[in-house]
Amino acid sequence: MKRVYNFSAGPSALPVEVLQKAADEMVSYGDSGMSVMEMSHRSAYFIDILHEAKNLLKELMNVPDNYEILFLQGGASTQFSMIPLNLLAKSNKCDFMITGSWAKKAYQESARYGEAKVIASSQDKNFSYIPKVDSKDFTSDADFFHICVNNTIFGTRFTPDNLPDTGNVPLVGDMSSNILSEVYDVSKFGLIYAGAQKNMGPAGVTAVIIRKDLIGHAKDFTPTMLNYKIHADNDSSYNTPPCYAIYICKLVYEWVKANGGVAGMEKANKEKAEKLYDFIDNSKLYKGPVVPEDRSLMNVTFVTGSDELDALFVKESKKAGLENLKGHRSVGGMRASIYNAMPMAGVESLIAFMKKFESENA
Amino acid sequence: MKRVYNFSAGPSALPVEVLQKAADEMVSYGDSGMSVMEMSHRSAYFIDILHEAKNLLKELMNVPDNYEILFLQGGASTQFSMIPLNLLAKSNKCDFMITGSWAKKAYQESARYGEAKVIASSQDKNFSYIPKVDSKDFTSDADFFHICVNNTIFGTRFTPDNLPDTGNVPLVGDMSSNILSEVYDVSKFGLIYAGAQKNMGPAGVTAVIIRKDLIGHAKDFTPTMLNYKIHADNDSSYNTPPCYAIYICKLVYEWVKANGGVAGMEKANKEKAEKLYDFIDNSKLYKGPVVPEDRSLMNVTFVTGSDELDALFVKESKKAGLENLKGHRSVGGMRASIYNAMPMAGVESLIAFMKKFESENA
Repeated sequence: MKRVYNFSAGPSALPVEVLQKAADEMVSYGDSGMSVMEMSHRSAYFIDILHEAKNLLKELMNVPDNYEILFLQGGASTQFSMIPLNLLAKSNKCDFMITGSWAKKAYQESARYGEAKVIASSQDKNFSYIPKVDSKDFTSDADFFHICVNNTIFGTRFTPDNLPDTGNVPLVGDMSSNILSEVYDVSKFGLIYAGAQKNMGPAGVTAVIIRKDLIGHAKDFTPTMLNYKIHADNDSSYNTPPCYAIYICKLVYEWVKANGGVAGMEKANKEKAEKLYDFIDNSKLYKGPVVPEDRSLMNVTFVTGSDELDALFVKESKKAGLENLKGHRSVGGMRASIYNAMPMAGVESLIAFMKKFESENA
Repeated sequence: MKRVYNFSAGPSALPVEVLQKAADEMVSYGDSGMSVMEMSHRSAYFIDILHEAKNLLKELMNVPDNYEILFLQGGASTQFSMIPLNLLAKSNKCDFMITGSWAKKAYQESARYGEAKVIASSQDKNFSYIPKVDSKDFTSDADFFHICVNNTIFGTRFTPDNLPDTGNVPLVGDMSSNILSEVYDVSKFGLIYAGAQKNMGPAGVTAVIIRKDLIGHAKDFTPTMLNYKIHADNDSSYNTPPCYAIYICKLVYEWVKANGGVAGMEKANKEKAEKLYDFIDNSKLYKGPVVPEDRSLMNVTFVTGSDELDALFVKESKKAGLENLKGHRSVGGMRASIYNAMPMAGVESLIAFMKKFESENA
């Protein structure tokens, strides 16, 4: 069966083993005589799947016991509302670092519900770096401090060692595009959220890892389905959860575990990213716009410096079975999203193509 | 491959042809070289799937041009909030008929945001009928009038000829458990909504059919993702939609179309339901709690009159390959959900089992 190397930023490539297992189990899951899509969410079969997914994510990320794991709907964009509605419970203040489009959207939504302050922004250089910050500039009584840990569009990230030190203020991290890609210390966060469609599964489910003391303080007018407490009290099954998407996440978690866990992913991701960045750095044609220390392991952005050549690159790479390399319109050029499921062979194919393209067009 | 007859109330049985096609296309969709789960929601492949799904639903339900079709996340429960947040735009008043648990939940959520009035309730007889109402009792300047068209738990429905006449007040109908099951005149409604997981696809996507003039009047504090206008202006792709769930819906819509459309479903559903209700009515053991004229075509509730026999029925039927016949705890007894995907052969197997059980236990 035809398979391409899919460098899409999201939804993105999944491990082919996961897809094959899902195909095999589609018409009848185990001895159930039905598809996972057809199962009552109250059935023993599905409750097992849900709990296995939850326990695997807890294990993989080493989530402490004082955190709750929720599987919700609506994507990270719904979290942009849920976070202020649920967390702005005392001072009604919150801090933001604007490191890209998604960080900005999160900020704008919080600003509708409370006093949201921009601590730093890298918009001056088209989000090509992570600003240096000093915790004395932070709002000391903020209800939370929000960062987008990996910036999909621009290709930057907060490394595990470079998270802002927010003291007692809960750090909230959008990890949609780098969850499970390298080892982060969950206990440094009050809340982590991630849409599944990059490193976990299909679009339609969002994992939320929330410290339990942050649950239960929603504003009065919070829609019931946007209240973390409703979902925590009902084990993510207040209403019918996105069962099939959770099942695929479970298969992906099993795959991550079988391949060395998050540490194993980190090792492979660093090898893949270093190989690609090294090639770019040593090339005469390609340039990476991101400052080296803030580079993402997941989204590698690069340009040729000519819009015409960039367009030709995208067109020719597609012909070579390398899909979705076009950069986001706000950066231009190219972007190779090399999530967990992208094998080294895919990166090597890309580099081989880049070499060939350079020799033909330099 | 083992397949059971699955009478689950939701998520529920899907056409086996749909599941087989989904399995075949799982690893590579058409000539794309990737799974639908792996596709960018901005790719031509997925945009085609989304538009085909939308156009098929429009065609199947004969949706007039002055309506928008949206595919959203969060289930019908999220609609319970979106409806008052978006529609309570003038008088801030709304009317409700309480015909079951879901109708009541919808009412309770609206009552948090506006003046919600209960026009009628059938709670006095455990929701075993649809109340008769007189439109002179309705709030003449209400912003909407809400009904749950089919009551999954209790097995009642508003027939297409028995919808309340709300005049100029937009009628809002929860059709989660009977969409596409028989022909309703969409133009009688201001808004129809339905979670997919009964007659359309997997849990995780909700279809909303909304008259365009009702879009764009959301309350100030409405979370961005709960504003119909955001989704209408962005063709249900403001953020990443639940792509795979929409794809399965598309396959189900194709199946409905190939099997006579909604009129074809209605004919088959009436034959299935009549056969089962006739058997129950003529049996000495089984009784249906619902008044005949308000019976659901989708959810057939029945009891033996003995809790012990009911429990035995559920246990023995499972052994016979008839799954999920246990009634909801608020009704007791049994419930056979016979959605579009349940073939007549499944109903005949159920009746054969009921006969045998009656002869052994009467």
